[in-house]
Amino acid sequence: MSLTLHRYEQVAAHVRQLVENGAYTTGQKLPSVRSLSQQLQVSITTVLEAYRSLEDQLLVEARPQSGYYVSPPQATPVAPAVDLECAEPTPVGTGEFFMQHLRNQRRSDLIQFGTADPNPDDLPVLRLAKTLAKVAREHARAVVSYDIPPGCEELRVQIARRALQARCVVSPDEVMLTLGAQEAIMLCLRATCQAGDTVAVESPTYYGFLQTIESLGLRVVEIPSDPNHGISLTALQQTLDDVPVRAVLLSTTHSNPNGSTLSDSDKEALVDMLGARDIPLIEDDVFGELSFTPKRPRAARSYDKRDLVLLCSSFSKTLSPGFRVGWVLAGPRWMPRLQQLKLFSNLGSPLLPALALSEFLTTSGFEHHLRRARRQYAAQVHGMADAIVRLFPPGTRVTRPKGGFVLWVQLPQEHDMIAAYTRAVVQGMTIGPGPIFSARGRFRNCFRLCAPFWTPQTEPMLVRLAERVFR
Amino acid sequence: MSLTLHRYEQVAAHVRQLVENGAYTTGQKLPSVRSLSQQLQVSITTVLEAYRSLEDQLLVEARPQSGYYVSPPQATPVAPAVDLECAEPTPVGTGEFFMQHLRNQRRSDLIQFGTADPNPDDLPVLRLAKTLAKVAREHARAVVSYDIPPGCEELRVQIARRALQARCVVSPDEVMLTLGAQEAIMLCLRATCQAGDTVAVESPTYYGFLQTIESLGLRVVEIPSDPNHGISLTALQQTLDDVPVRAVLLSTTHSNPNGSTLSDSDKEALVDMLGARDIPLIEDDVFGELSFTPKRPRAARSYDKRDLVLLCSSFSKTLSPGFRVGWVLAGPRWMPRLQQLKLFSNLGSPLLPALALSEFLTTSGFEHHLRRARRQYAAQVHGMADAIVRLFPPGTRVTRPKGGFVLWVQLPQEHDMIAAYTRAVVQGMTIGPGPIFSARGRFRNCFRLCAPFWTPQTEPMLVRLAERVFR
Repeated sequence: MSLTLHRYEQVAAHVRQLVENGAYTTGQKLPSVRSLSQQLQVSITTVLEAYRSLEDQLLVEARPQSGYYVSPPQATPVAPAVDLECAEPTPVGTGEFFMQHLRNQRRSDLIQFGTADPNPDDLPVLRLAKTLAKVAREHARAVVSYDIPPGCEELRVQIARRALQARCVVSPDEVMLTLGAQEAIMLCLRATCQAGDTVAVESPTYYGFLQTIESLGLRVVEIPSDPNHGISLTALQQTLDDVPVRAVLLSTTHSNPNGSTLSDSDKEALVDMLGARDIPLIEDDVFGELSFTPKRPRAARSYDKRDLVLLCSSFSKTLSPGFRVGWVLAGPRWMPRLQQLKLFSNLGSPLLPALALSEFLTTSGFEHHLRRARRQYAAQVHGMADAIVRLFPPGTRVTRPKGGFVLWVQLPQEHDMIAAYTRAVVQGMTIGPGPIFSARGRFRNCFRLCAPFWTPQTEPMLVRLAERVFR
Repeated sequence: MSLTLHRYEQVAAHVRQLVENGAYTTGQKLPSVRSLSQQLQVSITTVLEAYRSLEDQLLVEARPQSGYYVSPPQATPVAPAVDLECAEPTPVGTGEFFMQHLRNQRRSDLIQFGTADPNPDDLPVLRLAKTLAKVAREHARAVVSYDIPPGCEELRVQIARRALQARCVVSPDEVMLTLGAQEAIMLCLRATCQAGDTVAVESPTYYGFLQTIESLGLRVVEIPSDPNHGISLTALQQTLDDVPVRAVLLSTTHSNPNGSTLSDSDKEALVDMLGARDIPLIEDDVFGELSFTPKRPRAARSYDKRDLVLLCSSFSKTLSPGFRVGWVLAGPRWMPRLQQLKLFSNLGSPLLPALALSEFLTTSGFEHHLRRARRQYAAQVHGMADAIVRLFPPGTRVTRPKGGFVLWVQLPQEHDMIAAYTRAVVQGMTIGPGPIFSARGRFRNCFRLCAPFWTPQTEPMLVRLAERVFR
């Protein structure tokens, strides 16, 4: 392993290895802090920190006055292990398999466990439709006309206000509307990079990022990401030393697929690290408003003093993917270029969906809807994770994200989720096979599951998955 | 002049020169066919063809049993002269001036003579709004969901049917919906070219093409285009011999800005010429449905046997720019790549505008609206051209396109439309200054006017233009 890990991470990896090798099994007492300290020649504090991180990952449990024990492997599911091997920049490969997956994601006869979309049953579909209808009539003349970038001012004002919840202080002039976060990210990549440049992403990462990077002729370098702590800043730093990275593209909160959220201090450290090198951070925040905690985490952009963080988000996870309304928050260094790129891409988005969302936000209880959605997704995430623990093969690991609705599942090493994928479709459902979340086809025994489609009615599909798909 | 012109074009240029030099003035009899034939050592047929082309350009008029006479210079305006000098491939320059022009195009306090948009007063705004409202309610669940490429099937079926009027036989699978023709063209350029490649365009050409080409890091080579005959195929052929052109991007019917339409035989010759070299033609057809003739001209794509013509169009000129619904017609050689590029640009367009247009086309008399629009635009084009002839300085030339609603005006050499532009805005209107229609800043004494904004009420603005703006 060529990376410098924190010492405590090395210790934690050592203990994890002991458990995975079967040297210690469920319920057994692990080596004492003192003995490990002596054996590995590290401080007591380092061992304590290592055990604390393993507790976070639910791999061990502390028993007061006694020591650390191996947790029951399935009573509380543990996060999938992270492979800390760092990759050279690689072009991204687009396979026929990937297109097949996208087509299957739109089949209405399949249960869409594989997508990261909200379930339309849980969206305020009728209220949104009424708002569209009302706005179409009241602004009939405006909606047949162009709405050139930066786009609908009413909505930009509201987005700027909402950004305060992520501790971002922006003016409406620093907001540009886009066709979902996807276009926001595409435009940010075009504004910051040129063909042949390298972009750093976390691994696993949302496959849409990888495909966009590839479609622009860019290269990617994958930095390991841990479900509990997010991207490894140590590994990132080392990569920046070795590789001419032009931009970093990252979900900083409730990341897709591994659900990780960078801590506030890591967000600040990340912004400082990139700021010192004048490398832009393209921050994806699409799940930021779906935290299960009372206050949403702040965005990395809130620490940005150099106009180097371009925050991308949308209403696609919270209200309606089909409206195709997203945005970039960016300062004067980037905004003119972003607006030009948007203009020459499509002359601007349609006005109606933006006006309708602006109206909906003002009048229809968006906060109320969000509170309901957060409660429901929390219940579904935990319900689905519990079912996975109950039903899936021994040794299965699953994340327990603190927001969003995406689960990342790791089956024992021998499982192949590309082969399983086809069987899953035959059984009437999609899954998000691990290898599409990596430019190098890693995570073969992993897959993404989407909690909004888990209900008591669909739970039998998980049984089918366990019984007929995994082999 | 390094280009090979047809002999009759050389003769016509000679006669034009005689008139422009003042050797022959309004109402004077021009040299007889026989004398020109002897003098220039060309056949009688060639001279007749030359005079016929000058008649088309309204520069001369035939008097039966008598000969050819110089037309009154303003009674019937003549098309701006074409400069046949061919350019080396050049990067496109984006000036601050250009962005200023775009911002002014959206100011509601200015009369928008400079844009090529329909006047919202002439669009079926209320019927479109009602259709949007109806569709939003009836398809509430669908419109909150993604509509991934190729997009809304109902509309693709109708677009495939309508393509028959342009003599294009396509299946709905060969149609992909885009955000207006602008996105269609952007995606076609991305599908056919890579950064550094050269694209051939006509000159003058729509500035959006030039800006899109620049934003993709492509280079452009400008081929002269004549208001009466369109792009010079002779010049194009010569350029293809000299320059590695990767794609040709062209408005083949009622081009913006010079209003030219390639004849059917030239369209066929163009497709053959490019086919022999395996060079794709990106055909812009946005004004194709706004012909003043009973039958719309056929598209170049209708001659395509090699899947080398990618036709781009939209409903932005006919029904609603703000719906942002356009399309590409392309065969299996391009469609998978186009769909991927669209997907990774923005995951697809919003469904609602496409569904609403599909409904509108089925039920709300689109053909009736088109017939009305064509009649009205014909009247406005001629009314505005007549006003220009009446009001503008002697020596002014203006096109009389056979469709669309864009006029191209050439003032005498000493006028500078960049300087005039600022004065026009002060006077309460925009114009489309000539240099933005060229990558090399040509056409300084030319500008584009948009006929839909000409009405008896706005005619005084043309007086102001003549009296206070031109100097």
